[in-house]
Amino acid sequence: MNPSFEQTRKPVFSETDMAGIVHFASFFPYMEDCEHEFYRSLGLSVTNMCDEEGNSIAWPRVHASCNYKKPLHFEKPFIIKLEVVKISNKTIEYRFDFTSTDKQIIYANGSVIVVCVQFQDSGMESIEIPNNIIALLRKD
Amino acid sequence: MNPSFEQTRKPVFSETDMAGIVHFASFFPYMEDCEHEFYRSLGLSVTNMCDEEGNSIAWPRVHASCNYKKPLHFEKPFIIKLEVVKISNKTIEYRFDFTSTDKQIIYANGSVIVVCVQFQDSGMESIEIPNNIIALLRKD
Amino acid sequence: MNPSFEQTRKPVFSETDMAGIVHFASFFPYMEDCEHEFYRSLGLSVTNMCDEEGNSIAWPRVHASCNYKKPLHFEKPFIIKLEVVKISNKTIEYRFDFTSTDKQIIYANGSVIVVCVQFQDSGMESIEIPNNIIALLRKD
Amino acid sequence: MNPSFEQTRKPVFSETDMAGIVHFASFFPYMEDCEHEFYRSLGLSVTNMCDEEGNSIAWPRVHASCNYKKPLHFEKPFIIKLEVVKISNKTIEYRFDFTSTDKQIIYANGSVIVVCVQFQDSGMESIEIPNNIIALLRKD
Repeated sequence: MNPSFEQTRKPVFSETDMAGIVHFASFFPYMEDCEHEFYRSLGLSVTNMCDEEGNSIAWPRVHASCNYKKPLHFEKPFIIKLEVVKISNKTIEYRFDFTSTDKQIIYANGSVIVVCVQFQDSGMESIEIPNNIIALLRKD
Repeated sequence: MNPSFEQTRKPVFSETDMAGIVHFASFFPYMEDCEHEFYRSLGLSVTNMCDEEGNSIAWPRVHASCNYKKPLHFEKPFIIKLEVVKISNKTIEYRFDFTSTDKQIIYANGSVIVVCVQFQDSGMESIEIPNNIIALLRKD
Repeated sequence: MNPSFEQTRKPVFSETDMAGIVHFASFFPYMEDCEHEFYRSLGLSVTNMCDEEGNSIAWPRVHASCNYKKPLHFEKPFIIKLEVVKISNKTIEYRFDFTSTDKQIIYANGSVIVVCVQFQDSGMESIEIPNNIIALLRKD
Repeated sequence: MNPSFEQTRKPVFSETDMAGIVHFASFFPYMEDCEHEFYRSLGLSVTNMCDEEGNSIAWPRVHASCNYKKPLHFEKPFIIKLEVVKISNKTIEYRFDFTSTDKQIIYANGSVIVVCVQFQDSGMESIEIPNNIIALLRKD
């Protein structure tokens, strides 16, 4: 079974737009925060992750997408569920499902692909995902 | 040739994040603003569009995605180019290319699909794109 | 004693900026969300408030300010405390204190003044704060 | 006469909220961007400013406020005017006026106070504003 994680949240006023609903771009910080909360649930922080030699790694996004099914409204609680759908050599793909708290209404689903990088003198360089990270994701 | 439109802009401070670059979610308002500026260039406002009978129409998003190639930085001017890549019965698909002003560096590309809707007593209902809108897009 | 309310939250990545800290403008949605959560704790929603005759009222802001003392950081939990410091004829003034969870560090304090309005044919008009709202705030 | 600077801009969709107007927090990035554009007009970037010895300086905010007079709407062009109202030993105070392009409607006015800092091993430390910066502001 793929590692997964769920978060319940409520849209706030500043995330809405003049169409009276949650602005479509607000779904992307929702996904990012869910990913970060997922790592915190594993005892990690995205700003403080290391490979087995103690070198800092980071996870810039190479892809983000969202498909919108039903409008989300201010103060209406919803669930965002993260699932790790693919671990490649250097990338991780997450799927996100936005539903009502009873899971009867599907608001949206999204996808984010991140690449593992290290900081070299020459800038960021993509690297193979360290074994300690993979072990952590696999056992979840 | 597909209708297209270009905008030059500069990332502002509030669009950056603690990684020192433009936050990945900021690209979505960029795309939306470019789309709106494109319609303004045609003499239209997205908040005030009508079919041939004068009924209000609107364009909620059903899909938005972005592929990130190189980081964008504060104050660094870039071009965002919109292209209308597909007009279906009820939907329009836009492609967006983010490049340096000399077009030598590709920062990102994105895609947005919007659906044409009308407001009924029962809520929003998707409709066929009105001929006056298609005519305007075709002649551009 | 003035009505008050406390919320604990954690800054998310999209609220930070390239200076590596929470962007100064992020404190304003924090204050607004705390105000809305305060009203939810009283059984009310800001988007669904009425006077004693059942007429809808709303609370546009006439003032918002923030004084910054220490930088706030990503993932660092903090407390935001709302206090209703003044109820005038037509306005309510809130004070907000941002502190560490042990209250030893003061990050910022802010102030928001809202005015009570009703929607007339001619637009919004400021009105005296209805008694039912004042009663609710006083007893809190 | 105080140094001043004017910018014309149009609110974008993502800056609006479900009340149908520009969200009150959006005025703060407006002020910040106007300040940065002001410095660019002087040939400077806020992320690359130095004292006379070539040491980097920065300008964290210690205060930001806004008074709201009339609602701002999507796509409605407005002017934001910055004025340097006070240069103290270590701080600069800016005033911002938001008006219609014909200056007949006052939407809001705001105030931002920034403090000049240098980065020491121990963190940021406030310093006296360097003479080269003061000279630049005075002659403007």
